[in-house]
Amino acid sequence: MSSPMELYEQLTAQGLAVREIKAQKGEKAEVEAAVQRLLRMKEDYKHLTGRDYQAGRPPARTDDDADPAEDEEEDEDDQVDPWNVSTSSAKGVDYAKLIVRFGSCKIEQELVDRIARVTGKTPHHFLRRGIFFSHRDMHQILDAYESQKSFYLYTGRGPSSGAMHVGHMIPFLFTKWLQDVFDVPLVVQMTDDEKYLWKDLSLEDCHRYTLENARDIIACGFHPDKTFIFSDLDYMGASPAFYRNVVKVQKHVTFNQVKGIFGFTDSDCIGKISFPAIQAAPSFSNSFPQIFGDRNDVQCLIPCAIDQDPYFRMTRDVAPRIGYLKPALLHSTFFPALQGAQTKMSASDANSSIFLTDTAKQIKNKVNKHAFSGGKDTVEEHRKFGGNPDVDVSFMYLTFFLEDDEQLEKIRQDYRSGALLTGELKKCLIETLQPMIAAHQERRRLVTDETVRQFMTPRKLHFSR
Amino acid sequence: MSSPMELYEQLTAQGLAVREIKAQKGEKAEVEAAVQRLLRMKEDYKHLTGRDYQAGRPPARTDDDADPAEDEEEDEDDQVDPWNVSTSSAKGVDYAKLIVRFGSCKIEQELVDRIARVTGKTPHHFLRRGIFFSHRDMHQILDAYESQKSFYLYTGRGPSSGAMHVGHMIPFLFTKWLQDVFDVPLVVQMTDDEKYLWKDLSLEDCHRYTLENARDIIACGFHPDKTFIFSDLDYMGASPAFYRNVVKVQKHVTFNQVKGIFGFTDSDCIGKISFPAIQAAPSFSNSFPQIFGDRNDVQCLIPCAIDQDPYFRMTRDVAPRIGYLKPALLHSTFFPALQGAQTKMSASDANSSIFLTDTAKQIKNKVNKHAFSGGKDTVEEHRKFGGNPDVDVSFMYLTFFLEDDEQLEKIRQDYRSGALLTGELKKCLIETLQPMIAAHQERRRLVTDETVRQFMTPRKLHFSR
Repeated sequence: MSSPMELYEQLTAQGLAVREIKAQKGEKAEVEAAVQRLLRMKEDYKHLTGRDYQAGRPPARTDDDADPAEDEEEDEDDQVDPWNVSTSSAKGVDYAKLIVRFGSCKIEQELVDRIARVTGKTPHHFLRRGIFFSHRDMHQILDAYESQKSFYLYTGRGPSSGAMHVGHMIPFLFTKWLQDVFDVPLVVQMTDDEKYLWKDLSLEDCHRYTLENARDIIACGFHPDKTFIFSDLDYMGASPAFYRNVVKVQKHVTFNQVKGIFGFTDSDCIGKISFPAIQAAPSFSNSFPQIFGDRNDVQCLIPCAIDQDPYFRMTRDVAPRIGYLKPALLHSTFFPALQGAQTKMSASDANSSIFLTDTAKQIKNKVNKHAFSGGKDTVEEHRKFGGNPDVDVSFMYLTFFLEDDEQLEKIRQDYRSGALLTGELKKCLIETLQPMIAAHQERRRLVTDETVRQFMTPRKLHFSR
Repeated sequence: MSSPMELYEQLTAQGLAVREIKAQKGEKAEVEAAVQRLLRMKEDYKHLTGRDYQAGRPPARTDDDADPAEDEEEDEDDQVDPWNVSTSSAKGVDYAKLIVRFGSCKIEQELVDRIARVTGKTPHHFLRRGIFFSHRDMHQILDAYESQKSFYLYTGRGPSSGAMHVGHMIPFLFTKWLQDVFDVPLVVQMTDDEKYLWKDLSLEDCHRYTLENARDIIACGFHPDKTFIFSDLDYMGASPAFYRNVVKVQKHVTFNQVKGIFGFTDSDCIGKISFPAIQAAPSFSNSFPQIFGDRNDVQCLIPCAIDQDPYFRMTRDVAPRIGYLKPALLHSTFFPALQGAQTKMSASDANSSIFLTDTAKQIKNKVNKHAFSGGKDTVEEHRKFGGNPDVDVSFMYLTFFLEDDEQLEKIRQDYRSGALLTGELKKCLIETLQPMIAAHQERRRLVTDETVRQFMTPRKLHFSR
């Protein structure tokens, strides 16, 4: 006989199978047979566990666990570091707990309001919706900004493939907004050396991916006079000032520390072990003498996904010991895979997300076929009980990309009530993504080799203060 | 009552005290009292151990050890790595055993003869006298050279202070000879980043020492059209090709490996742990595109002191795995401190060696006062029993710097027979060093900032094949 967990997994698979058959417009008899089998499995599950099957809510591991409500709090399985993000919850990682664990600060409404006040602009919907949800020292950045002191932005990308997906765009879309509203310079680190060290790729491949990805980043609309994009493999060998900061950090971090922070072991190569210093160095303004001269007092603000925080916890620990300012941070949540929020997307699985190279048809097929649904398995059930937007990937994607707050809220309510069916929700996402991706492709097409060269040349940048 | 070892140490100290008093022209009565005390201690020592006291031959640790002749073989205490060289023998490290331990090859007379044949030049006295005593793949270099394929030389210096001593010159003097007789290009790595990581020095200090030391290196007479001297702190940030090779090595060496080779621990900073890759990278010709273009098939020959071998054992292990040639090596013995061959010299102790900045008077005083003598404590004893050139530092220095083989052999014989007194031997060394250092200082004075800049500019070098 199956264990509750085995049955849960079989049920989840059968749910996906039903959706698959429907999406492919299978024979009516085939659909009905699959649905019947699903309903039988649900009964078995309830018989075995004493509870209704719920997508994204696996059975408890022990018999004597507490009541179902408390299961919401279980995040023992959440793993978040720069190379692994995993959780057993279909809602994704428990970010409130992550804030406590990482020792960062929640972005409260008050901070969002203050950003609006200081910039005179409506906060980006990533801020309004808690997609950027955590920070370090953001008030300090605003204090300084209010007293006419500038700062600069630093974000990055690990170029592990030539194609980027929509999730990779999140920090860049937000960084672009920050650059616009604060009028500040931006440095973008392409960690091609990191990808070489971690993946089975050649140096040449990693560097090529850097140039490809740079096009997508430029296509986000960054200001050419305020933005410097650099490949580690190039810039490390093009800037003695940068290498000096790398060595300074390397002198002040022990193997014990990186072992604790990143989980490195004695079997890891020495390149991995020393790499964190290379991701730390752009946090210090004098790593970019072409932009800041020898000034080391321009504070850095780093918008990034929360999984990158370990690098910057280390950086903030080292900074005062080498006479530098700690970088401030704004952390985003993870962008879910089409298959569900349990994992971060994989650039190597074409079906795990929407790629910036996808055609309108591919977008439609992927959403219809692969986007994990929080809806019920039959229209009847859905109309009667409503869907669950909290675990529905199409709805999650809309929170990232549908800018209209009212429209989003209406979708949420209608889906929950059952008024909006899964197919309709997916249609809404498809119609949001298709023009967005097409516009990106058009902008990327206009990025010439010369434009890439321009963004990637170490040079003076223009900014107001 | 004192143990044999304690008495041995007291005796050694008393011997030094007698020499000190004599060197400072102490009162006759004072000298005699010190000598009498010394002779009494020698009697006690013989009584206690059953053996005569011999400088540089500490008593055996156990009572049941074998006969005195076998003590010569004891090198259990020899420690040789890039940061520590120590031995309990006044003759210095047991190099024959080091060859076995490191797995290198002895430079046999046959190899010396072959070098003479291939170059048509008398081998350098460092080769004739076994100062360069060990090698890896030197026959391969000569095979290639005989079939018209070139190679290049790579040596280096850790700039831990602005002043260099004569011992630091050994690899450079030999490298200069190799450059001349083979007509090949040379790269000289100044590991200022290493010194920053290992010592309590600022980056600025280390870089300044690089520029100072470069003057001394240039003053050895290297060919400006065939020699590139580089600071890691500068060149790492000036050559993407160099950094690419550093990362390649870093990917193929684990912490376990550097722990085994260098004795690093978890408390070491990540800079130290990854540094070996930076010392490895110059072994590959495509680290210097200005010199070799993208050729990675020009073999490298590294003349260095044997303590640097661990870096290159690692390099040779990695090379084939990243598609490169293994560097060949020529290893020198260590240059002894004035106080005796038990330790390598310390650049931070002005009295431990002759510095390239010393005046004629300082040279005379240092040799007379500090050079450990293999002579007897009284003229009478010396005339009767003769001195021991094998532990006499003045004699050792002459083997490095007195080019005339016959004169050196006569000094050895006369000293051993007792015909030559310690004061006369020291005078001979002083008269060898004074003009040598003065000439160096004169050549160094002529090295302009422009010359330094020229040697340190990445550029095309001239060489015949």
